[in-house]
Amino acid sequence: MKPINVGLLGIGTVGGGTFNVLKRNQQEISRRAGRAIQILKVADRNLTLAREVTAGACEVTDDAFSVVNDPDVDVVVELIGGYGVAKDLVLKAIENGKHVVTANKALIALHGNEIFAAAQKKGVIVAFEAAVAGGIPIIKALREGLAANHIEWIAGIINGTTNFILSEMRDKGLAFADVLGEAQRLGYAEADPTFDVEGIDAAHKLMILSAIGFGIPMQFERAYTEGITKLESKDIRYAEELGYRVKLLGITKRTEQGIELRVHPTLIPEKRLVANVNGAMNAVVVKGDAVGPTLYYGAGAGAEPTASAVVADLVDVARLADAAFEQRVPYLAFQPDQIVNLPILPIEEISSGYYLRMRASDKPGVLAEVTRILGDRDISIDAMMQKEPADNETEADIIILTHVTVEKNMNQAIAAIEALPATVGKVTRIRMEELGK
Amino acid sequence: MKPINVGLLGIGTVGGGTFNVLKRNQQEISRRAGRAIQILKVADRNLTLAREVTAGACEVTDDAFSVVNDPDVDVVVELIGGYGVAKDLVLKAIENGKHVVTANKALIALHGNEIFAAAQKKGVIVAFEAAVAGGIPIIKALREGLAANHIEWIAGIINGTTNFILSEMRDKGLAFADVLGEAQRLGYAEADPTFDVEGIDAAHKLMILSAIGFGIPMQFERAYTEGITKLESKDIRYAEELGYRVKLLGITKRTEQGIELRVHPTLIPEKRLVANVNGAMNAVVVKGDAVGPTLYYGAGAGAEPTASAVVADLVDVARLADAAFEQRVPYLAFQPDQIVNLPILPIEEISSGYYLRMRASDKPGVLAEVTRILGDRDISIDAMMQKEPADNETEADIIILTHVTVEKNMNQAIAAIEALPATVGKVTRIRMEELGK
Repeated sequence: MKPINVGLLGIGTVGGGTFNVLKRNQQEISRRAGRAIQILKVADRNLTLAREVTAGACEVTDDAFSVVNDPDVDVVVELIGGYGVAKDLVLKAIENGKHVVTANKALIALHGNEIFAAAQKKGVIVAFEAAVAGGIPIIKALREGLAANHIEWIAGIINGTTNFILSEMRDKGLAFADVLGEAQRLGYAEADPTFDVEGIDAAHKLMILSAIGFGIPMQFERAYTEGITKLESKDIRYAEELGYRVKLLGITKRTEQGIELRVHPTLIPEKRLVANVNGAMNAVVVKGDAVGPTLYYGAGAGAEPTASAVVADLVDVARLADAAFEQRVPYLAFQPDQIVNLPILPIEEISSGYYLRMRASDKPGVLAEVTRILGDRDISIDAMMQKEPADNETEADIIILTHVTVEKNMNQAIAAIEALPATVGKVTRIRMEELGK
Repeated sequence: MKPINVGLLGIGTVGGGTFNVLKRNQQEISRRAGRAIQILKVADRNLTLAREVTAGACEVTDDAFSVVNDPDVDVVVELIGGYGVAKDLVLKAIENGKHVVTANKALIALHGNEIFAAAQKKGVIVAFEAAVAGGIPIIKALREGLAANHIEWIAGIINGTTNFILSEMRDKGLAFADVLGEAQRLGYAEADPTFDVEGIDAAHKLMILSAIGFGIPMQFERAYTEGITKLESKDIRYAEELGYRVKLLGITKRTEQGIELRVHPTLIPEKRLVANVNGAMNAVVVKGDAVGPTLYYGAGAGAEPTASAVVADLVDVARLADAAFEQRVPYLAFQPDQIVNLPILPIEEISSGYYLRMRASDKPGVLAEVTRILGDRDISIDAMMQKEPADNETEADIIILTHVTVEKNMNQAIAAIEALPATVGKVTRIRMEELGK
């Protein structure tokens, strides 16, 4: 078969990785794909960088639209990121009848519906394995490998920056702000880390997993997002004493009432494999009704791990470029006319276990009042731990783990606890997930 | 699209699971596949069972050949197992131009070359996701998800029975024979457990992973297989003291000299995720040059987990039944004319770290002699531990961990150590793998 011609948009970290992997493994990749995958043209604003990386192997331009308009390009690989010009380029490529491979989670999570509709009309592939969890083939696993299952829930560590920070906070007992600085020096966190530490990046990826798992359209604006900036290392330590680890999880669940879609710090029993995923690594747990829980682990970012996913998509495109629409895997796992607009629940309606920490006078009767407040709202207690007050203090930390309850009940309980004369300040609340069968 | 018609051979555990999953999730599966997947005919020697499970939903027969010869059957699902009649049925189905889905690892590992050649000639699919690690979509991950990578090694816990036994030996300090009895009572081990406990089942699965990872033909007779029957709980305990867990691993590596292909008990650093996979669960670690290490975890056996993989294959078949050959993923990941017959190394030529346990007189000078023997063969020592002799004994256990060396050097060193006047009996040797970057 004749080679498939790639137009590469963006030759930064992931673009450079993609160029290098395709070059280094070209023979092995062709032996799998049955045809060569060759980069015909690279576009980048930084022409010097583009020339340096490509070293004369292909044409280089700073005009990305000249690539998506080039009739010789079969497939456009969009590695620019963001949803400004990237969106225009992807839509233009589709309009021109080109297949698209992208690593752009923000673009898919926010504009996926529009992009897939346009692609379907033109009969082209839009592949985005690299958009979630870098090199881990989680999109393929969920979309194809688990196609027999009614997916019950998906929970993942899908942001390496925050997992690195949480691992360091735990290992070294440091505060968030101190570890963030270290992460920035080591290149694990951006100069402006907001997207990562506030959970927005994880929420983009979670939206994609949820859409594929449950066959719902993208509706990113309904995701609940809570980052790790307010997390205290004290709570990580207390959680540990109770047999739990704290991870920033993206969680999406199917319930009778609708779909839960939420990113927040989460206590997980330390025995779970996913609780032991440390450093910048990613892992996604998928629970299907037939297969039970399965887990997928690997590098969630970085030049070559992400390139691994981009090139895997290119191999799929190389095989199915000329196939009929129904011979391809649907964009969101379900056939386009089978996407169902299930409601995404507001955070008040989700159900979860809870870790609560409060400061209270070290006097008899406080615990009785707190347990009464919880009991009145049918919230049952799983574990309780009271720390001795420090030498010069009269207040002690009380930690309570609760069984699963609806968030709005917990909100009421927390308000009532905070109103008690014996408690001081706010109650710290961290959600808790068993992630078991 | 019109439904795809399945002929199901065998309605035992996995066959029953497949029937039930297809029935329960038929709507959701069709929404993904774009067409219905319906079981037209079931064959089983046990007609009573077949009638009970199918409850009148389809035709039932005890003549499996009538299914593979039925012109209305599009795809044959072979869940009989073994390589007697199963092989004849699969080859007949292929001859009749039918696609085949099978969970039969022994059949693929031993007769895969013949089966794939026949299937290629007829232009039909032979899918076997369920043959390795049950519900974990490891074949798809390796064959498609990691297609960009030069695969360096694959290591997996791919037999649930032995992982259950090893987990129990560790947790309860019990001997192999005692735990085996318990496993048999609980249904985790067969009445005749040889295939599992001697590592043969794991070796079948490893052969398949190796062929797909490296693009080599099946050559099961060259696999090295060592089971867990001689493993003592004492060694599991000592390994633990040194920071390792003992697992029955299937390991296949690409080296300059050739392919390593071996199943044996293995020490793994306890920090590795795969070292913490317990009970009957499976996990496979794949190291690619671009993606780095990735891990896939889930249930490796059981009715519905295995059915999950069988039905995922059926969804692939439903999509690609009428596609051109080059639009499908090749049987062994590489195009048929790109399979290369790399040599599989005899066990003497493999490289590994080693755990050695010996009994020796508690006299000065013994350690010096042992370290000299190792040093003479360029085997460097990673860690050493000497246990105090028990009260009424004059001999002590010495445990040594070595860095990586070639097995034949280690064989010589062990022979020399056993010949020392100060040592008693045989040296216990367990291989050790870092499984790191």
